[in-house]
Amino acid sequence: MAAIDSAPAYPRTPRTTPTRARDRVSYDRDLVHRVLDDGYLCHLGFVRDGAPVVLPTLYARLGERLYVHGSTGSRPVRSAAEEPQGLPVCLTVTHLDGLVLAKSAFHHSVNYRSVVVHGLARPVTEEAVKRRVLDAVVDQVVPGRAADCRPASARELAATALLELDLAEVSVKARTGGPNEDPEDLDLPHWSGVLPTRTAYGPPEPAGEGTAPAYLARLTR
Amino acid sequence: MAAIDSAPAYPRTPRTTPTRARDRVSYDRDLVHRVLDDGYLCHLGFVRDGAPVVLPTLYARLGERLYVHGSTGSRPVRSAAEEPQGLPVCLTVTHLDGLVLAKSAFHHSVNYRSVVVHGLARPVTEEAVKRRVLDAVVDQVVPGRAADCRPASARELAATALLELDLAEVSVKARTGGPNEDPEDLDLPHWSGVLPTRTAYGPPEPAGEGTAPAYLARLTR
Repeated sequence: MAAIDSAPAYPRTPRTTPTRARDRVSYDRDLVHRVLDDGYLCHLGFVRDGAPVVLPTLYARLGERLYVHGSTGSRPVRSAAEEPQGLPVCLTVTHLDGLVLAKSAFHHSVNYRSVVVHGLARPVTEEAVKRRVLDAVVDQVVPGRAADCRPASARELAATALLELDLAEVSVKARTGGPNEDPEDLDLPHWSGVLPTRTAYGPPEPAGEGTAPAYLARLTR
Repeated sequence: MAAIDSAPAYPRTPRTTPTRARDRVSYDRDLVHRVLDDGYLCHLGFVRDGAPVVLPTLYARLGERLYVHGSTGSRPVRSAAEEPQGLPVCLTVTHLDGLVLAKSAFHHSVNYRSVVVHGLARPVTEEAVKRRVLDAVVDQVVPGRAADCRPASARELAATALLELDLAEVSVKARTGGPNEDPEDLDLPHWSGVLPTRTAYGPPEPAGEGTAPAYLARLTR
């Protein structure tokens, strides 16, 4: 597996091959990692009684594995524990980068980066791994925070459910740049261009005393 | 159906009843509408060959119906056209409102609002409806924009695929407020509180000449 794990791209599979906009898709490992590392909120899809379910949750990436935060008792966590091979899931992470305003309604679009991971989610059971992953999830959301809070107790770790999902069947789609226009629309009087979007943070709202730590300033600047 | 449609809450069903954090769930119709109207990006889940697929896309709400933007040829659109009853989907809209930093790693959380809609997605085929919905999607993203761009031609409408999904089986989950703390953690030296998050816009990046319109200023302010 070493050769596969260090390959510069994830292998393309039927379900990571889009039926349209194929020029926007990539399997580049570094790009996938960057998009995943830029976020912490994912939408996790699974099948329950034959119907799809999509829930938002937090994740962390450690190497070629994603970890999804859950809670003992939540549906995907219970289902994953019941499936000997793991629970089939689709985990999607999307960053919205801009609103694309074209001269025509039809060519309006958005700039985005989106990673889609297909695979089997398995429960993380080892306490040492759970401890490392819980810290990784905290640091994925606020880098530097895991070292600046009370670590989880054994009881808390037992109440934390984590799923692991290998980065094996993965694709990333992205749109960048300005609007595509029909040539005959170019002289229309409507404004066209991009309205950039990003997640903005702050200012911090303290619950008690003390100065907001420096690692928050990296987010709020 | 009139009585149901005007009821102040959506009926609770087995799959909109959470297995945990039940105090965070609501079926309030106005709250659901507000959360949906605050966004335009959704994650659409469906089942393909027995496995879940989750894709980001744009939506608009018109009354008690959601419309999902697609493209002829995309997988969910083709699947919806092949299913006489419609394609079983789960449509989820999530707003991240804040990062919740507690004294303990375990009590870290996020503030969010998330609507989950279960139902059957059907293709929109009538040209007049497609035109109205395409405008609604443009206005859902940038309110006021649909009236300030060239309307879709018949050819463009034919190339636009839209799915409709009734708001019938719907729930909204939300977390607000500061960190929950174990009483014995309260004196720990770590900063605790909330780092608010929001989607920030701008400044506009024009593709050509002209002043950015006033309806963009409502987003960038």
